[in-house]
Amino acid sequence: VVLAVDQIVGGRHYVDEPLDATPAEQVGRKLLARNLSDIAAMGARPSFGLVAVALPPNRDVDWLNRFLDGILALAREFGVAIVGGDLAAAPHDQVASLTILGEVTRGNLCRRQGAQPGDLFYVTGAFGGAFESGHHLTFQPRCAEGAWLAQNGYVHGMIDVSDGLWLDALRICRASAVGLRLDPDRVPRRSRGVSAAEALSDGEDYELAFGVPPALAQELEHAWPFAGVPLKAVGEFTAAERPEVTGMDGEPLPFDRRPGFDHLA
Amino acid sequence: VVLAVDQIVGGRHYVDEPLDATPAEQVGRKLLARNLSDIAAMGARPSFGLVAVALPPNRDVDWLNRFLDGILALAREFGVAIVGGDLAAAPHDQVASLTILGEVTRGNLCRRQGAQPGDLFYVTGAFGGAFESGHHLTFQPRCAEGAWLAQNGYVHGMIDVSDGLWLDALRICRASAVGLRLDPDRVPRRSRGVSAAEALSDGEDYELAFGVPPALAQELEHAWPFAGVPLKAVGEFTAAERPEVTGMDGEPLPFDRRPGFDHLA
Repeated sequence: VVLAVDQIVGGRHYVDEPLDATPAEQVGRKLLARNLSDIAAMGARPSFGLVAVALPPNRDVDWLNRFLDGILALAREFGVAIVGGDLAAAPHDQVASLTILGEVTRGNLCRRQGAQPGDLFYVTGAFGGAFESGHHLTFQPRCAEGAWLAQNGYVHGMIDVSDGLWLDALRICRASAVGLRLDPDRVPRRSRGVSAAEALSDGEDYELAFGVPPALAQELEHAWPFAGVPLKAVGEFTAAERPEVTGMDGEPLPFDRRPGFDHLA
Repeated sequence: VVLAVDQIVGGRHYVDEPLDATPAEQVGRKLLARNLSDIAAMGARPSFGLVAVALPPNRDVDWLNRFLDGILALAREFGVAIVGGDLAAAPHDQVASLTILGEVTRGNLCRRQGAQPGDLFYVTGAFGGAFESGHHLTFQPRCAEGAWLAQNGYVHGMIDVSDGLWLDALRICRASAVGLRLDPDRVPRRSRGVSAAEALSDGEDYELAFGVPPALAQELEHAWPFAGVPLKAVGEFTAAERPEVTGMDGEPLPFDRRPGFDHLA
């Protein structure tokens, strides 16, 4: 059994003014989807969820019901049973949290650690511009992909990219005590308007990023059964004195990494 | 495995202005204690917890650390491992939620249903004035008591009293499809300044309330091993056309029940 908790805050993770600038169903859907993405990165299958909601006076029962409908529709899709909850009043803000349980065979559990020098760095999907495109509300959590990768033993260190590929890649480096040479030009971008820098820093992509032993890379690419989901090697892990993400030449990347992902603020 | 989630909101469940009107450690302690009380009412033993916190700009890392210290100190006391968490920024409010896991043998699981006509209605501890006395921050969750009651088979329907004894007793009645004759003068009060009406409605008592078959009542009172914790029968469940709480004479209680517990608002 694996456990994760994630929150969604009005004005941070979705636009909340004017009322229903983001439909309540999409807010609920996003809360669960964020948690499913966490479970996906562990190679686990989601099972149960509990929801806590704190709402200000300008959100009524109708808003709450539509919020819950958004959670429950996605829960059905992913086979998750919502088994508990709590509702509270807050003075101003809308804050909801969801705790999710998942199941994974012990040997298949994926963590951020485990990437080794020489492993290729793979990503699913595309990056950047998640807010502008609405992707941050409509993304499909990579649960099937994560479980498949874990079951078939392809993964050396995995994370779901919520805070920007650069920062989340750095988290794999820190957990694995390795460096990463990354080719920004190979990172798939969500649209033509997205720059290489934005693809690395925008965040809210909810794609999987993971290391793969080079001997397994060709087999992985041939066996990958998710036709609609791009899979691409965009870098290589290296032995490094300290965890860092550089260009392919080992030099600093030619733009600044924003310090974490700031959501709407 | 049982699961529960509960929240704590600044300005609702604790005084948050001026900053640290309620010490951060006590806020954290209360959040976990509320969840432990839920677990206690199921007759379960708490095992794991996950915490999600959303904080506004006027709460700094020091506040967060002290909040977590308050959680962790009580977690150690009750053998709970805090295994996950999430931190987010909120525009104005302080909202935290904690999801708790507990373990209980299937046959010992207690719920609100199960009270039968003729069962005596027991409570632990004392009631009323929880905010004025600080009890709402310092209460000791009745985990050992709840697990003992469940293991020894004394319980027909149990709840933890968070929203006032009257309302929570009514919840047992609804779940069990029974009525309850309650003697307000027998309900232990936290202090002399607390009226009978306040003892039934104030809330935040975090005591246990439960039905006990009359044949077991004397044995229960003799065997009760918690010397510092009062145990008292304060009423009797009845066959009733609809769930209701009355006086011992079956007439309405001589004061109004406030509709749920309003916390600070």
